[in-house]
Amino acid sequence: MRARLTLLAAALASGMAQAELRGSGDLGLVIERASGSVQIVETTTPRSLGRIEGLGDLSHATAVFSRDARHAFVFGRDGGLTKLDLLAGRIERRIVQAGNAIGGAISQDGRLVAVANYEPGGVKLFDARSLELVQDIPTGSKVVGIADVPGQGFIFSLFDGDAIWLADTGKGESGPRLTKFADIGRQPYDGLITPDGRHYIAGLFGEDGLALIDLWRPEAGARRILAGYGRGQEPLPVYKMPHLRGWAVAGGLAFLPAIGRHEVLVADTRDWKQVTAIAVHGQPVFAVARPDGRHVWVNFAHPRNDTVQVIDAAKLEVAHTLKPGRGVMHLEFTPRGDQLWLSVRDADRVEIYDTRGPSLIASLPAKAPSGILMAARAHRIGF
Amino acid sequence: MRARLTLLAAALASGMAQAELRGSGDLGLVIERASGSVQIVETTTPRSLGRIEGLGDLSHATAVFSRDARHAFVFGRDGGLTKLDLLAGRIERRIVQAGNAIGGAISQDGRLVAVANYEPGGVKLFDARSLELVQDIPTGSKVVGIADVPGQGFIFSLFDGDAIWLADTGKGESGPRLTKFADIGRQPYDGLITPDGRHYIAGLFGEDGLALIDLWRPEAGARRILAGYGRGQEPLPVYKMPHLRGWAVAGGLAFLPAIGRHEVLVADTRDWKQVTAIAVHGQPVFAVARPDGRHVWVNFAHPRNDTVQVIDAAKLEVAHTLKPGRGVMHLEFTPRGDQLWLSVRDADRVEIYDTRGPSLIASLPAKAPSGILMAARAHRIGF
Repeated sequence: MRARLTLLAAALASGMAQAELRGSGDLGLVIERASGSVQIVETTTPRSLGRIEGLGDLSHATAVFSRDARHAFVFGRDGGLTKLDLLAGRIERRIVQAGNAIGGAISQDGRLVAVANYEPGGVKLFDARSLELVQDIPTGSKVVGIADVPGQGFIFSLFDGDAIWLADTGKGESGPRLTKFADIGRQPYDGLITPDGRHYIAGLFGEDGLALIDLWRPEAGARRILAGYGRGQEPLPVYKMPHLRGWAVAGGLAFLPAIGRHEVLVADTRDWKQVTAIAVHGQPVFAVARPDGRHVWVNFAHPRNDTVQVIDAAKLEVAHTLKPGRGVMHLEFTPRGDQLWLSVRDADRVEIYDTRGPSLIASLPAKAPSGILMAARAHRIGF
Repeated sequence: MRARLTLLAAALASGMAQAELRGSGDLGLVIERASGSVQIVETTTPRSLGRIEGLGDLSHATAVFSRDARHAFVFGRDGGLTKLDLLAGRIERRIVQAGNAIGGAISQDGRLVAVANYEPGGVKLFDARSLELVQDIPTGSKVVGIADVPGQGFIFSLFDGDAIWLADTGKGESGPRLTKFADIGRQPYDGLITPDGRHYIAGLFGEDGLALIDLWRPEAGARRILAGYGRGQEPLPVYKMPHLRGWAVAGGLAFLPAIGRHEVLVADTRDWKQVTAIAVHGQPVFAVARPDGRHVWVNFAHPRNDTVQVIDAAKLEVAHTLKPGRGVMHLEFTPRGDQLWLSVRDADRVEIYDTRGPSLIASLPAKAPSGILMAARAHRIGF
């Protein structure tokens, strides 16, 4: 009897510890880059729900989310792929799948996780449930800028191959069908899918301009846009290449971090011609649009990374300047845009703003935080 | 000892029944209009997780979702407001808050639920946690087309008042600050927020054309767009006024169900001028864009409601015609667009399509299903 009671009590306790019944729509992850750990946060209170350790090298780490927003797949720089259970607060599975990786993506139906690898260069596809290898796509090149595309596929760029590949994974057992785009420009270093899911744009490290593919008309191939976008003929000192993934699109305009200049460029998304340039505090790294598009938040490269500016997308000028502290690494909105979360690496904290003022509403301790990733990314194309 | 054991066992059993640990991102609701019930579904398998009964009159019912995607707030025609716990599979709270209601919305921060009432005419704001009344906004008119707007507020139209009101609920305790737009046209009957969160558009029952408010410049007031949109000078027989809320925006174009005509109209979202009209099978009711914008799915009014057509948004022509059966009431995509769910009322079933073919992948029994609402609406402005 006592034994049964103990068993029951243990089951109850473990059930309660693991199974705090809660929705997963307001969860998020904070990457703690120096300690190989992440914090699970929720945005409603807001607060931290706990820390998970043992994720390896998380410098430059990113993550994608399962379609039920319960699991995160964290891509580490050391080739580690870690599946986290956000509700149970633990690592569900972890593999080291390559020597050096740069990021990943999850398929539209949530069944495949793709990892972009530097060493050996290529893309590996894993079963999202088991993390078993499903397919290996060697490329003979470092792979960058991977994203899911509508209709079960992935698109990515080959840094050493001067190419963009589209892998259609939805056509049965014989492996993905590959479409290879050449003549895209030299050394693509990052890529993104536009928020409407239609265009893939790759930044070029080896020359000025960007490569654009219209996913509605892949047969048209890549075309070059924004010829002046880049490091220029006489390169300026570039402290950090900006993240394309942070591009903001608002009101038919794209807001791009300029490279090497203290400017955010504004381009018309219909013809991808530059409309204007907005003077900002430093070399921008991320320019992220609030979900309603009215404001674009910008952070900056070292040594000006203590500052964040907010651009008014209607007036095309800086509306607010904030000084959160040294090492503002990343900006992330809650899905409807009521809050903005940012990481202040050197101050070991995450700050949370009400986006209306903006005004600081909360601050959470974190160890050298970098990326902040909301679980609602599960529901967005290209994230 | 036995008592403690029984208590523990009961707690464990109820804990297990309630607490199947699962994410909420892939959940959805199917409204069963005739029986006052809903089914909770999940899209990953896909399958039904169960039925909840006792929700009152669900003809023309709709729902919004909490920011953690755990709870749904169902607005019944009889003035009932029911808060469902999707994870526990039960009614958490239910009130009858008016004699006759038409819909509702949830605030950007998830704290307030607003209900638009016909009788007595007005908007009531409730605490999303407790369903306690927070604020009453009498309007002296039936209220239609309510939606949340960025920055803690709601916008709605007064059918009898020929007006649109914007209620800012974010400015402290003294109640919402109201901005009233007059001269918007006669008898607004529905309204929507454009997917980018910037514009509110109201349809007019009393005259042709639509009223548009730019939320970035509310001081500019309402302006009239698409002067030819409506029942026309010599009204055609209109079997069902189309739902504005179904409007598709894809690739800079809006796809609108024409009123009384067998056409889907296409307008440029920059100047809201009509670009073309696409001939379709019947009088369209909903025209819904797949999240990547490439396809627009359309259903039709009685007596042609056994058919669904798929428009190719690049070619601006019908690409596919499906015949699911009599009484296709509603269409809903999964958030990344891999699946389309539709309700076939007279066949008592819900059909689920892989949107690539499209091809039917599953069919679920349901009692006279009408609305299908995915929990990921929690993360979208204006839903």
